[in-house]
Amino acid sequence: MPHGRSSGLAIGLDIGGTKIAAGVVDAAGHILQRERAATPGSSPELVEQTVVDLVTSLRRGAPDAPVGVGAAGWMNPETGTVLFSPHLAWRNEPLRDRLVAVLDGPISVANDADAAGWAEYRFGAGQDEPNLVCLTLGTGIGGSLVSDGQLRRGRFGLAGEFGHQVIVPGGHRCECGNRGCWEQYASGNALGREGRELARANSPVAHTLLDAAHGDVGTIDGALVTELAGSGDPACREIVAEAGYWLGLGLANLAAALDPGTFVIGGGLGSASAQLLEEAEASYRRHLTGRGYRPFARIRRAGLGAEAGLVGAADLARREAAEAAQ
Amino acid sequence: MPHGRSSGLAIGLDIGGTKIAAGVVDAAGHILQRERAATPGSSPELVEQTVVDLVTSLRRGAPDAPVGVGAAGWMNPETGTVLFSPHLAWRNEPLRDRLVAVLDGPISVANDADAAGWAEYRFGAGQDEPNLVCLTLGTGIGGSLVSDGQLRRGRFGLAGEFGHQVIVPGGHRCECGNRGCWEQYASGNALGREGRELARANSPVAHTLLDAAHGDVGTIDGALVTELAGSGDPACREIVAEAGYWLGLGLANLAAALDPGTFVIGGGLGSASAQLLEEAEASYRRHLTGRGYRPFARIRRAGLGAEAGLVGAADLARREAAEAAQ
Repeated sequence: MPHGRSSGLAIGLDIGGTKIAAGVVDAAGHILQRERAATPGSSPELVEQTVVDLVTSLRRGAPDAPVGVGAAGWMNPETGTVLFSPHLAWRNEPLRDRLVAVLDGPISVANDADAAGWAEYRFGAGQDEPNLVCLTLGTGIGGSLVSDGQLRRGRFGLAGEFGHQVIVPGGHRCECGNRGCWEQYASGNALGREGRELARANSPVAHTLLDAAHGDVGTIDGALVTELAGSGDPACREIVAEAGYWLGLGLANLAAALDPGTFVIGGGLGSASAQLLEEAEASYRRHLTGRGYRPFARIRRAGLGAEAGLVGAADLARREAAEAAQ
Repeated sequence: MPHGRSSGLAIGLDIGGTKIAAGVVDAAGHILQRERAATPGSSPELVEQTVVDLVTSLRRGAPDAPVGVGAAGWMNPETGTVLFSPHLAWRNEPLRDRLVAVLDGPISVANDADAAGWAEYRFGAGQDEPNLVCLTLGTGIGGSLVSDGQLRRGRFGLAGEFGHQVIVPGGHRCECGNRGCWEQYASGNALGREGRELARANSPVAHTLLDAAHGDVGTIDGALVTELAGSGDPACREIVAEAGYWLGLGLANLAAALDPGTFVIGGGLGSASAQLLEEAEASYRRHLTGRGYRPFARIRRAGLGAEAGLVGAADLARREAAEAAQ
């Protein structure tokens, strides 16, 4: 039976709003063993107990493997505290301390998008790119930044919230409290909102969409719009094109600030829509400051799929444990 | 006579649109000797000859000191090439190679805002802050990023062009070719444009401004608007307040993406207007995503003044020479 730290094995967890994915990950990023559990409501105690159960189970095969926990939210990697998690009702939750009190061995915490981006850098579509911006397009936009080969999390661990850069002042209200955030224009939620608005207007162009939703406008979401656009519905293709326009404008803004060599785009929406990425690339090239006098960054589809967060959390834990042991 | 490399001395140059400032800088960031020359038009050859003359003169007191050349424009620090310089008509200019062919010893090139930001980190208002964003507010907005204690220049050396993030899609045309760039709303040029527009409307509130410009609307610039706002003119205070609003919104956008612990704001405009920074801070606090659940970054006035670029270029050259010698 392999021995965690000495074998290079690490355990990664990705806590989502509905499920917790966990696995034993080797030093090459391969998942050797998987477990999963439903996320038990939003009680921090119940979530933590589930994490402990999953780790205890997985550690049978990797006894003292370091543990990396990724979740949506603001993690301070130094203190191991979750400042705020939108889905999990965690507010100033000392997650790492609570886990350390029950579990042996090194434990680290990471923002889920940071973990996913790190995995893409180490093992996925960003492997050869030390200056990398990764985006996770789902209901919102998660982001992470690798520069000069290291994950950059900022002063308080909150860097990479690209989705909450205001790009349309006075625009659509965002859950974060602002108006006009990028993710209100270039995410699954944006596609859903535009689809519902179009359907409610009862325009002749919206009939395919209404039929697919069986007349129930409230059920129209980003996934449905993406699917119909993929099968050629002109109205949904217009909606996706518009989201791609905004996505590309935001990429150009990130290129102005960060000058990555590569953008990696993943997440449910990022993987589902080829049209979205094509439109985004065209818009990026149209909006890049100084275009014509500088190289374009590559835009690549993510390589690791939905398990990137788990793999990245494990790899970050392995690295932090190795650094702490030095 | 001190000996350059062994003494820790370096030579820094800051090539501006009208003048070239040069100096011998010690390892503590003090300028021991200064020279300056007019920027000879925009001919790359004449500018390079002037640089060579200044360095030759300064090296009499610091024989083999490494040389750092800062200029507005896009420098690839690896190749030493200037991809594009707005004021100097440099396009794909192999600046470092040309200087190396004439001057002995190590030579490095840097973007002027990167050099200034680095100087603030090493010796100025950002000394205690390894996660720092520096802005140079002048006619435009220059920017630089220090994360985890290192200057981050991106894949091609072009990071930090925060002023060219689009924050008002379809807004004012920018020299960079886009519309709605941040620097069109929060720079000296923005103040001048708004001042001229107000004066042209011949509104009763613009009379102080028109009088100060002796009726010549075309002479109204950011400096005049700033000065009149400082002396209490209500119309100019409104213009500055508006620029501060946009400045703060952009700071909040940068905090979302980069999560610095401190913003340092310098440049001619940044130093001239206390009101601008007050308004910016209020707007930043109003627009920061997740405010209430996270710390605010500090906003500090730059500490080094107009010589920051020269000091930073010298210090970067010293570091690069030391790294190359290892």
